[in-house]
Amino acid sequence: MLDFWFDFISPYAYFASLAVPRLCEERGVEVRYRPVLFAALLNHWGQLGPAEIASKRAWTFRDITRYAALNRIPLQGPAYHPFNPLTALRLALPEVSGDDQLQVIQAIYAAGWGQGIDLGDPSALAETLDAAGLNGQELVARTRAPEVKAALAREVEEALALGIFGVPTFLVDGELFWGNDRLDHVALYLDGRDPLDRTKVDAILARPGAAARRPGLAQQPFKKAD
Amino acid sequence: MLDFWFDFISPYAYFASLAVPRLCEERGVEVRYRPVLFAALLNHWGQLGPAEIASKRAWTFRDITRYAALNRIPLQGPAYHPFNPLTALRLALPEVSGDDQLQVIQAIYAAGWGQGIDLGDPSALAETLDAAGLNGQELVARTRAPEVKAALAREVEEALALGIFGVPTFLVDGELFWGNDRLDHVALYLDGRDPLDRTKVDAILARPGAAARRPGLAQQPFKKAD
Repeated sequence: MLDFWFDFISPYAYFASLAVPRLCEERGVEVRYRPVLFAALLNHWGQLGPAEIASKRAWTFRDITRYAALNRIPLQGPAYHPFNPLTALRLALPEVSGDDQLQVIQAIYAAGWGQGIDLGDPSALAETLDAAGLNGQELVARTRAPEVKAALAREVEEALALGIFGVPTFLVDGELFWGNDRLDHVALYLDGRDPLDRTKVDAILARPGAAARRPGLAQQPFKKAD
Repeated sequence: MLDFWFDFISPYAYFASLAVPRLCEERGVEVRYRPVLFAALLNHWGQLGPAEIASKRAWTFRDITRYAALNRIPLQGPAYHPFNPLTALRLALPEVSGDDQLQVIQAIYAAGWGQGIDLGDPSALAETLDAAGLNGQELVARTRAPEVKAALAREVEEALALGIFGVPTFLVDGELFWGNDRLDHVALYLDGRDPLDRTKVDAILARPGAAARRPGLAQQPFKKAD
């Protein structure tokens, strides 16, 4: 079992959504698709997203355009970014899309990041699902139910309890792997060839820090711990 | 010419420091080594570093331990992390290490991330450089000069003016590449095979956002732009 935590806001989760099904199918591993609100993770950890620092936003869009070209992945980017992903995320919940969950997720990603629709617009999402042969209006209507909103909120709470700080994140046997770039490590883990020396990493993690950053000081932001 | 912006605080910059010299030598590209204080970048952009979110710190050390094992790179991690990197960074300035700059940088990385010395301790740094056949005491003494401190401060200012937000960052012809994982894109660029469609990415970057995050709200952090 692999849990694939994602938000439609993330282009790297889009790339991962194209690779994960095959990677897991080849290994006979079931995938659970776990939509999560990236903005809520950022709020919890007090972090900025890549699109919230101007030069990092520009770099990120250049990076994904290169990646898509090299890997022959359709990429137009959604019509607006950032956008409010709540309806799209709720559509991706099994409580809403049921047995069509994977088809819904793939249709949304393809239409938004691949073709450029507005992923924050419920009408555009409904049309996208209609075009995929699903009942878009009915599915979007379901996302407005209080129990569906509560289900997404529970996903957020579970992600935070697991220490998830970004998307995409892959969870296998309680082990987190963060980022589309780390699917190679996921594959090694699933193949029983994880190279991690747990004794070594535990020893490194147990060591203390010797300095702390003093936020706000551009030139001398360090103090000694004691 | 490739500018390699790094801070000894970053294990990914350590990995990149091992790959960049050969990557550039094979292509006849000169490297300029540009030490920069990552903490000052974080302060400027209002961002947290990977070691400042507990679960991200744990993930990062697991990730680098895997990477080092797969790539047969010595890794003990420095004795303390985070540490105050100012003396080490100043040693890496050409104003201090002159023609020995690359040797100084490699000796510091190997002793700290590779073997586990305290990279925040000037005495340990001096011993490291002595062991590399350099005059460690004299080099460390030079780092205390006001003009050397000013030189590192200028590196920080230049990095911020370029929009650099993380390390390692590689700068070629004004084009930024962020992260050890992106040395493949750097190689393509240097080989004249950059796949970037600049028209496409400029069109994506020109699009507006449709939602903004409301920090502090864990469950409903979005508002419509209007």
